[in-house]
Amino acid sequence: MPPSSVPGTSLLLDLSSDVVTLTAAVCDIQSVSWEEAPLADAVEAALRALGHLEVLRDGNSVIARTNLGRDERVILAGHLDTVPLAAEPNLPTRREAGVLWGRGTVDMKGGVAVMLKLAAGVPEPSRDITFVFYDCEEIEGKYNGLGRVAANRPDVLAADFAVLLEPTDGAIEGGCKGTLRVDVTTKGVAAHSARPWKGHNAIHDAAQVLGRLSAYQAEQIEVDGLVFNEALQAVGISGGIAGNVIPDRCTVTVNYRFAPDKNVEAAYAHVQQVFDGFECELGDAVDGARPGLHLPAARDFVAALGLPVNPKEGWTDVARFSALGIPAVNFGPGDPNLAHMDDERCPVTQYEEAERALLRWLG
Amino acid sequence: MPPSSVPGTSLLLDLSSDVVTLTAAVCDIQSVSWEEAPLADAVEAALRALGHLEVLRDGNSVIARTNLGRDERVILAGHLDTVPLAAEPNLPTRREAGVLWGRGTVDMKGGVAVMLKLAAGVPEPSRDITFVFYDCEEIEGKYNGLGRVAANRPDVLAADFAVLLEPTDGAIEGGCKGTLRVDVTTKGVAAHSARPWKGHNAIHDAAQVLGRLSAYQAEQIEVDGLVFNEALQAVGISGGIAGNVIPDRCTVTVNYRFAPDKNVEAAYAHVQQVFDGFECELGDAVDGARPGLHLPAARDFVAALGLPVNPKEGWTDVARFSALGIPAVNFGPGDPNLAHMDDERCPVTQYEEAERALLRWLG
Repeated sequence: MPPSSVPGTSLLLDLSSDVVTLTAAVCDIQSVSWEEAPLADAVEAALRALGHLEVLRDGNSVIARTNLGRDERVILAGHLDTVPLAAEPNLPTRREAGVLWGRGTVDMKGGVAVMLKLAAGVPEPSRDITFVFYDCEEIEGKYNGLGRVAANRPDVLAADFAVLLEPTDGAIEGGCKGTLRVDVTTKGVAAHSARPWKGHNAIHDAAQVLGRLSAYQAEQIEVDGLVFNEALQAVGISGGIAGNVIPDRCTVTVNYRFAPDKNVEAAYAHVQQVFDGFECELGDAVDGARPGLHLPAARDFVAALGLPVNPKEGWTDVARFSALGIPAVNFGPGDPNLAHMDDERCPVTQYEEAERALLRWLG
Repeated sequence: MPPSSVPGTSLLLDLSSDVVTLTAAVCDIQSVSWEEAPLADAVEAALRALGHLEVLRDGNSVIARTNLGRDERVILAGHLDTVPLAAEPNLPTRREAGVLWGRGTVDMKGGVAVMLKLAAGVPEPSRDITFVFYDCEEIEGKYNGLGRVAANRPDVLAADFAVLLEPTDGAIEGGCKGTLRVDVTTKGVAAHSARPWKGHNAIHDAAQVLGRLSAYQAEQIEVDGLVFNEALQAVGISGGIAGNVIPDRCTVTVNYRFAPDKNVEAAYAHVQQVFDGFECELGDAVDGARPGLHLPAARDFVAALGLPVNPKEGWTDVARFSALGIPAVNFGPGDPNLAHMDDERCPVTQYEEAERALLRWLG
């Protein structure tokens, strides 16, 4: 991990400012995926200036950690990148009537600002902390900065527990569902559509596939005390060769979101069972993450924050920690339903409350 | 209609050669759609040289007619163009063991050769004849040469009866079915596929559309003594936004091939009834053609040829004659199932038999 780029060229982040002002400042350094360098430089420079942290750099990811010899080490993690700006650019941020508007105010520069405030404000935390600021979360998974660091330097991510500061609207969200996609294909025999009796229509056969999907009763599955709602849904369908041809194949792309009581292999076996008799082909697939809320480090976290705990329905990078054997939860400011929206915004009190909650645990 | 292009530049067609040799010669003047000029020039030159025909030219269409003052006028029509050659070029033709192989041997230069033989060999036919050799049949309908002539010069196409020399494998094929396409769309509400209960899956709803198609019992409808097999079939389906999104619309493209007892309007009303409750949008649509076999000119034709009469299942340009009020049938050499195939071929006896059959009527 090379040192920072040329000193003095970084934009400046003032970690002594309050968390709302700091969130706005972090948002105002644009960092659409692949363009995180200026923000990564600013974060690295601000953390190095603190003096009490070991700071590492990997591409546009920045890792900083205390080394106080505590019994427990925890990770606080957040991504630096955002989705592109709205067509009517939603930056710089503006603050109105207690709400901060703009790209990143929800996903997830409030979380990044909270991490920076804790890094600066708690030089001697109750457990050692590894702060992980990473790049390329909002694009295809293979570019994910956290995944890259986990592959390059798994030692850097050694920890007893991790908190991912993705927006959770004030609650703690435990674990996450896994997800896989399967192409279910029906096959027929092509023919001229004026003489369909000479062929066999594969799209008509897809009625059975869609019928099974419509009739499917998704399960609710409790894992480590949280109830996950599974889902099996078509996300795509395609078939047809030309306007005068009976099509010889039709493919329904199905997305299965499965509870973390099972892995990809078991989940795929279930989908194959649902579509028994049809050709199935597994597409992309990732395991979910068990909440692990029965483990001591997680129990301490929940007890310290004193906030409600819900299951995480969508897949998040907590699954990457889970794959490393580190129990992890999501906790961060912002309403996740506003993530990626043109009118992305967050009440400023959420930033303050998130900072206070984590201080109860680490301070 | 301008006269021919510069005399002497045409390739030559010898109308005194036998119909098989002439078919091979017509095939060997390549004439993929839009590139019919050399063949149209050759046809025009050969017909003008006969002396007993009035010859007109419209683009790459050539019209020739007798003007003998007969009580009845009939049209013999055929297109000059072919689909592109096979990847392994299937021209020039080759004749082996009584079979002529190559592009156009079925669709439909045998018919063109038969027309040329009749034009040359029957200067005083039993009824006046209008020969129509036209361009651009094998591509989008709006470029069709017969359609263009019908629009530009309907007077040229005045007749009591028409024979289209498309391949019919030795039988007479009466009329043709109409065809229309309808997009049947289901609508839902988009949502993240990890939380489908916040949306409504439009692809799942398409199960009902496909279910109705699967259950649909197509009718057999007798028109003018011929039984047409209707068909209602999906020819395309599409839906889906992204791999993690519950889709908010799904469109099934349906092709209805309807008997010529009804027009497009009535046929579309039927499709709307089948998909009652779903959004329907009419795409391209053309009327079919009634066989008109009860009409005197058609009866005479069938009696003279003494061949079986079947319904035409696919749409052909006979519908253009029908739209002009001219009863029309398909009759020509070649197996239509071999049209457009890389191994397009025809027993040479079929050319001879087609010529003899039409001579029984016109000689």
